Amino acid sequence: MNNAYSTAAYRLYDEKADFDKKAQGIAVGLTVGSWTELPEAAKQQMQRHLGQVVNVDVHEPVNGAPGERYADITVAYPDVNFSRDLPALLVTTFGKLSMDGRIKLIDLQPSSDFLGAFPGPKFGIKGVRDLLGVYDRPLVMSIFKSVIGHELQGLREQFLQQALGGVDLIKDDEILFENPLTPLEQRVKVCMDAAREAEQTTGQKLIYFTNLTGSTFKLKENAKRAIDAGANGLLFNVIAYGFDALAELAADPGINVPIAAHPAMAGALYPSQHYGIAAPLLLGKLIRIAGADLSLFPSPYGSVVMPKEENLGVMEALLTDALPQKPVFPVPSAGIHPGLVPLIMSDFGPEVVVNAGGGVHGHPGGAAAGGRAFRQAVDAVRHGKTLESYSENHPELRIAIERWGVRTS
Amino acid sequence: MNNAYSTAAYRLYDEKADFDKKAQGIAVGLTVGSWTELPEAAKQQMQRHLGQVVNVDVHEPVNGAPGERYADITVAYPDVNFSRDLPALLVTTFGKLSMDGRIKLIDLQPSSDFLGAFPGPKFGIKGVRDLLGVYDRPLVMSIFKSVIGHELQGLREQFLQQALGGVDLIKDDEILFENPLTPLEQRVKVCMDAAREAEQTTGQKLIYFTNLTGSTFKLKENAKRAIDAGANGLLFNVIAYGFDALAELAADPGINVPIAAHPAMAGALYPSQHYGIAAPLLLGKLIRIAGADLSLFPSPYGSVVMPKEENLGVMEALLTDALPQKPVFPVPSAGIHPGLVPLIMSDFGPEVVVNAGGGVHGHPGGAAAGGRAFRQAVDAVRHGKTLESYSENHPELRIAIERWGVRTS
Ligand SMILES: [Mg+2]
Ligand SMILES: [Mg+2]
Repeated sequence: MNNAYSTAAYRLYDEKADFDKKAQGIAVGLTVGSWTELPEAAKQQMQRHLGQVVNVDVHEPVNGAPGERYADITVAYPDVNFSRDLPALLVTTFGKLSMDGRIKLIDLQPSSDFLGAFPGPKFGIKGVRDLLGVYDRPLVMSIFKSVIGHELQGLREQFLQQALGGVDLIKDDEILFENPLTPLEQRVKVCMDAAREAEQTTGQKLIYFTNLTGSTFKLKENAKRAIDAGANGLLFNVIAYGFDALAELAADPGINVPIAAHPAMAGALYPSQHYGIAAPLLLGKLIRIAGADLSLFPSPYGSVVMPKEENLGVMEALLTDALPQKPVFPVPSAGIHPGLVPLIMSDFGPEVVVNAGGGVHGHPGGAAAGGRAFRQAVDAVRHGKTLESYSENHPELRIAIERWGVRTS
Repeated sequence: MNNAYSTAAYRLYDEKADFDKKAQGIAVGLTVGSWTELPEAAKQQMQRHLGQVVNVDVHEPVNGAPGERYADITVAYPDVNFSRDLPALLVTTFGKLSMDGRIKLIDLQPSSDFLGAFPGPKFGIKGVRDLLGVYDRPLVMSIFKSVIGHELQGLREQFLQQALGGVDLIKDDEILFENPLTPLEQRVKVCMDAAREAEQTTGQKLIYFTNLTGSTFKLKENAKRAIDAGANGLLFNVIAYGFDALAELAADPGINVPIAAHPAMAGALYPSQHYGIAAPLLLGKLIRIAGADLSLFPSPYGSVVMPKEENLGVMEALLTDALPQKPVFPVPSAGIHPGLVPLIMSDFGPEVVVNAGGGVHGHPGGAAAGGRAFRQAVDAVRHGKTLESYSENHPELRIAIERWGVRTS
């Protein structure tokens, strides 16, 4: 008999609710349905299925300011009530409850038994570093400038220029779907061919994350087609397909390449104060349990922003020792230019992917120079130099700084 | 060459944005990436891939009230940019954009070409009525009172009592997953056996929606196992698995039973004023395109509420002639008792499912009496009688009214 519990933490806003009663209602209503009116024999049978209130922390607003009264509530759900998959966990803890007033799911702490069902990332940070042979610096990723409407040769040339700049990772745009101009297998072939061509100049390995799309029940087949064509990475729009699809792709031994989870549609879920799923859970913990090797999320630096506190929460969930799944590379994205590299490395530490689109392609010397400028910025920080001083002997970095400046906070 | 466009309507809140510029940025940024700086030849090549701003409607707040300035923006996306699946449509129109400030996806109007790729509900309202042979009244659905921790015999007895009351549809609880006490095939067998037993008394057909759960890539297999065991309906937590999974289940000729879409987790997406996906799109249009035969959503009557305006928007999307997919039964749920039936039928018209849990099981005469009270309430309205007068000769209805009252607005 399994007596493990998985807990869920919520924040509920309500002007006058009795939050203790509310918490009890959740613990009973989302498990056995009713309790106080049950006969004694039924209670004995149902006890192991009954949810438990772990904590109720009520925040009364100063001066009774309207709209600011809330409680943080933690409820423990018996594992015996749900199967070992993420839809079951999410529907149990935040299914009907998601529609019950101003309530946001802040965190989940699945039991170790539940977590044990998830192999998680095949590669994780260390595995990705092993593939590249790069251990002593943040990785640099670049994104295609424009993919829709381009033919294979145009895509190949864009890829080549990015690769020649010395980036470690290149990803498809998340809005590149199966299409007649650049179909999956041909796209993989020309891009991996460009990767090999660039390697002769740079001496560097490179992972190309091709966008895994199409119908749900063909995702595995499409992944394997891409891999057979030479793909050494996959990009996946996890929110559109659900966390379980990611978990099963990651657990499939035939899909033996790193997966980068893209946060497309996540903005429908995390930013509201009152509703949805908090970013550290959505783009951190769940992504890691499901098994992506890299997690992209909006950086705190650009126009598509997530507050820095939430960014650090996502990073913490991706890196913490408290989960059995391998740590996942945080990839703060959007608005990244070389002048931000010291700040990124200071905010995120060494285990981070510096990911840029416009900051690579918008370099006055072109995408290859843009990639070099990023690598030089990373080297400057590693050598304890300021970007300004390091740029004296590194013209690509100097030009990037002239273009975008240096941002230190 | 396909020159069709699919449009997306957004509401954006911003204190000072130039909304026309913002709309142009969306139309370009989410399609070809850049435009004004493109050379003329590239523009010719890219023109068919370029998004178009259809409409920008700016609402300046009276007296410049803070937080109330917004714009309704409609953008047309060339179909040529994305594949014929819902993840592609959603990631194109509300992928990265979902994270770009206070923005909510209000509606999608896919092109007829795109819509043509979706067979939609196999049954729809008419098909479900055909299965039951009921054409002249709203259907009545009942939900198990409590399922977790119960053994097969307990479940069978609950099912039998509900069925004896004359309900048309019975659904599993959405939190009933694969479990040792009531595994899928055995659960289907005992419940369908109880349905046959009840039919001998009621003379009525009945559809049992068993909860389809488990790993994504086994959903079809599980659905077929349930059907082979005798299931004549499936319940599906569509938000947890994604709209594409529903679309592919609905399109599979081997899954020849109606599917009821459960809104579990939908509250993470629709209630915020500033973020997410509007309820009529999420629980109406997308459910219908994907192909559920019934759509459950929070009623405007109970404690788990959705405002009536949104409810009617969901209903409109499920019923409108403007979509090629068959109309879908609206199932406003939560807080439903017999005294609400006239209001439900007045708000929703004849094509609605009256769905109750507590309103069936909480009847002082038991679940069978509870079902009868609902059927009597429906009959009263059909015969142009008030519940009060009809209840004079219908004791179950009378007792229900004594218990819950009659609500007329
Ligand atoms: Mg992108
Ligand atoms: Mg339920």
